[in-house]
Amino acid sequence: MSTILLTNAWVLTLDGALTQHETGWVQIDGDLITALGAGVPPVIAKAEIVDCGGDIVMPGMVNTHCHMGMSVFRGLGEDVDDRLYRYILPLERKFVTAEMVRAGSALSALEMIAGGVTTVADMYYFETEVGRVVAEAGMRGVVGQTLADFAPPDHRDFDEGFALVEALVAEFAGHPLVTPSIAPHAPYSTGLAAMERVAAWSADHPDVPVQMHLAESDLEVAWARDNHGTSTVEVVRRAGLLKPGLICAHCLHLDDVDIAHMAEAQVCVATNPRSNGKAGRGIAPVEKLRQAGIPVGIGSDGPMSGNTLDLFSQFAPVSMFAKLLGKSRRPLPAVEVVRMATIEGARVLGMDRKIGSLEAGKQADLIRIELSAARLHPIYDAYSMLVFAALPTDVRDVMVAGRWLLRDRQVQTLDPKKTLRDALQIATAFKAEMARIDQDSQ
Amino acid sequence: MSTILLTNAWVLTLDGALTQHETGWVQIDGDLITALGAGVPPVIAKAEIVDCGGDIVMPGMVNTHCHMGMSVFRGLGEDVDDRLYRYILPLERKFVTAEMVRAGSALSALEMIAGGVTTVADMYYFETEVGRVVAEAGMRGVVGQTLADFAPPDHRDFDEGFALVEALVAEFAGHPLVTPSIAPHAPYSTGLAAMERVAAWSADHPDVPVQMHLAESDLEVAWARDNHGTSTVEVVRRAGLLKPGLICAHCLHLDDVDIAHMAEAQVCVATNPRSNGKAGRGIAPVEKLRQAGIPVGIGSDGPMSGNTLDLFSQFAPVSMFAKLLGKSRRPLPAVEVVRMATIEGARVLGMDRKIGSLEAGKQADLIRIELSAARLHPIYDAYSMLVFAALPTDVRDVMVAGRWLLRDRQVQTLDPKKTLRDALQIATAFKAEMARIDQDSQ
Repeated sequence: MSTILLTNAWVLTLDGALTQHETGWVQIDGDLITALGAGVPPVIAKAEIVDCGGDIVMPGMVNTHCHMGMSVFRGLGEDVDDRLYRYILPLERKFVTAEMVRAGSALSALEMIAGGVTTVADMYYFETEVGRVVAEAGMRGVVGQTLADFAPPDHRDFDEGFALVEALVAEFAGHPLVTPSIAPHAPYSTGLAAMERVAAWSADHPDVPVQMHLAESDLEVAWARDNHGTSTVEVVRRAGLLKPGLICAHCLHLDDVDIAHMAEAQVCVATNPRSNGKAGRGIAPVEKLRQAGIPVGIGSDGPMSGNTLDLFSQFAPVSMFAKLLGKSRRPLPAVEVVRMATIEGARVLGMDRKIGSLEAGKQADLIRIELSAARLHPIYDAYSMLVFAALPTDVRDVMVAGRWLLRDRQVQTLDPKKTLRDALQIATAFKAEMARIDQDSQ
Repeated sequence: MSTILLTNAWVLTLDGALTQHETGWVQIDGDLITALGAGVPPVIAKAEIVDCGGDIVMPGMVNTHCHMGMSVFRGLGEDVDDRLYRYILPLERKFVTAEMVRAGSALSALEMIAGGVTTVADMYYFETEVGRVVAEAGMRGVVGQTLADFAPPDHRDFDEGFALVEALVAEFAGHPLVTPSIAPHAPYSTGLAAMERVAAWSADHPDVPVQMHLAESDLEVAWARDNHGTSTVEVVRRAGLLKPGLICAHCLHLDDVDIAHMAEAQVCVATNPRSNGKAGRGIAPVEKLRQAGIPVGIGSDGPMSGNTLDLFSQFAPVSMFAKLLGKSRRPLPAVEVVRMATIEGARVLGMDRKIGSLEAGKQADLIRIELSAARLHPIYDAYSMLVFAALPTDVRDVMVAGRWLLRDRQVQTLDPKKTLRDALQIATAFKAEMARIDQDSQ
């Protein structure tokens, strides 16, 4: 088993005590962190020594909500209100195939690795392809097969949808990096009966995480009110789906009763500030959720909604939104944002005993952030620097389970040129279809 | 006179018709753009040919509000509400010297050049030093000597303050890149009488732009109400200072009457979304201001407030804030954000006949944006890509007045290592002072 020793690093452990070693080292044996500390590193025969030159070494980031396959749609239909029904669903019905999901997911993996994301929770169609891409890229992923009633591209009804889930679960059973997951799209797009079915299935598969969009749009709030006379969270609760470990994405439209029910049920939340802000949808009550004891991770949402997939892009928005809601500089200090991106995100995915902080015995999922740019200095507080000045392009090296995915900014596990070429080839067809949709609507 | 020919470029001109040449060229003679177009470039003997490999070439960005000297304070006192009086003013009184302003401004210039800012409007103390740094860096600047009544570091009273303004104006009279400016700090920190004095002085110096903070904080609103029984904009109007070309920074707390008065007076606005968002202060009514015919540029504010000085960092916030205010995806489309960062920003500084778009006869202030990153693709719309996916680190080359300031991401005009070292040396002293302030207050 090979040993790697990172030396001369500014180690941010993100452990419970927020231990930092300004001049520290991290020892990695196989896929595990086996020791770390400050000062002079141990002498280990045959270890590969990586002198980090004072750069920051911290846990890899956890993107708790994504639709990787959609990167081929990135930037389509910006600044248009009715784009879900005008563009996204028609485009998905026409173009989403296993090949497209593979190409889009690979482009997304490339971007996330380069930007310091080591673990991603994804939900989309042909999700087995996403799992394969994540595995090939060497990332860690929770990959959720989406179930929906709006004629999605890979299943005609829920029976077919569940069959896809079963196939996904079978393929990745026991995989060291890829965790299969089931993903009812949202309350309004699955309905009470299908959610009850998911809840029953989930009770029989306690190790398969459940992800869903929740309380995201006015449309959804109106659906719950008009069809069930209550809040959208309450509909999920009635379906028996509001339960420990449910990963709820967005969560903008919540009242205090909803939050109390969510806390009691021990669900988790993935907040997507850039996506929600760009949509003009509103600001998630992140402080309230966290104060209620609900773990909140950060998500990029799909690249058609939030455009970029790293978490640095989400840091200023998530922080500013909390401060604007609170009309003060105090809410959600920088260190809490970094926690959300690492250990708390890991908790959202049920993985906090395995990843999310640098501690002996945990998986060696870590990133190195180069501090050469003028923009980053002076550094009075590393967390402030990370949240308000650092960029995904400052990430120099990325490791997952002891394997380098990025070295000197070069992705090691996918072919960058081929990946980009494959994605662009697919994108060409969309331009024509977009033009046709716009033409037809005039 | 040397000729430079940029070829094989995706030229975004930002001219009135928003002309784009997907495969275009730009001819530069001396400090001027002399021709540009699509297709095959002209053959010019002895021209330096730069093949841009399909990268975007667009106008350099205009940062309409900054305090360059403050970069040495970057990241100090985050997440604390009373930081202006608790940290900033005491630190400024104790540490702000001509040497500090020089070191801080140089670090800021380095960051802005690397991030694609070619013109900056600055207001701070010892502003002659800022002007000198801007000139040495080869950037274009509107440098404003600040006047304030709170015992600022470089003048004991307004007589001394005006003497500094006169010296600044004398030093940079006729300078091709640096425009001297006068900068009353804010209504509450200058007062009615001093603003009247600035208005009178300004009438005698019509070519010297006036910059000030306006309608930024609750404190300022309360000051105007308690001392003058009206809005802060109205106090500036009574002082005779609300007049064509006044550069008003922030402008969060405005009612419809204020906006009507501002439009009538033909003032300009510099919005600073990251700074305002981080402070939890609120969202500027950018759409309303622009609909009233007021030009709105984008500013970074000082690096202690907004942390970074490029405009890419401001794009998502300025866009999201407008969409959140309007509860829709439609407000402030991506192309308008890029306009604000270029031609409209130039108009805010009274320079739109000279810079802000790529047109024959204008100054050759332009930037090249490399499109190699996976994160940027596909590109269905260049403006969406710039606003929601591009980063300052995608800027590869920067030119001001025909001179390269950045080539292959290397700053050509300042010594990056020495500049960073000088700034960090100064920052060390602040850490001790911050600790002392925190100690004293316990």
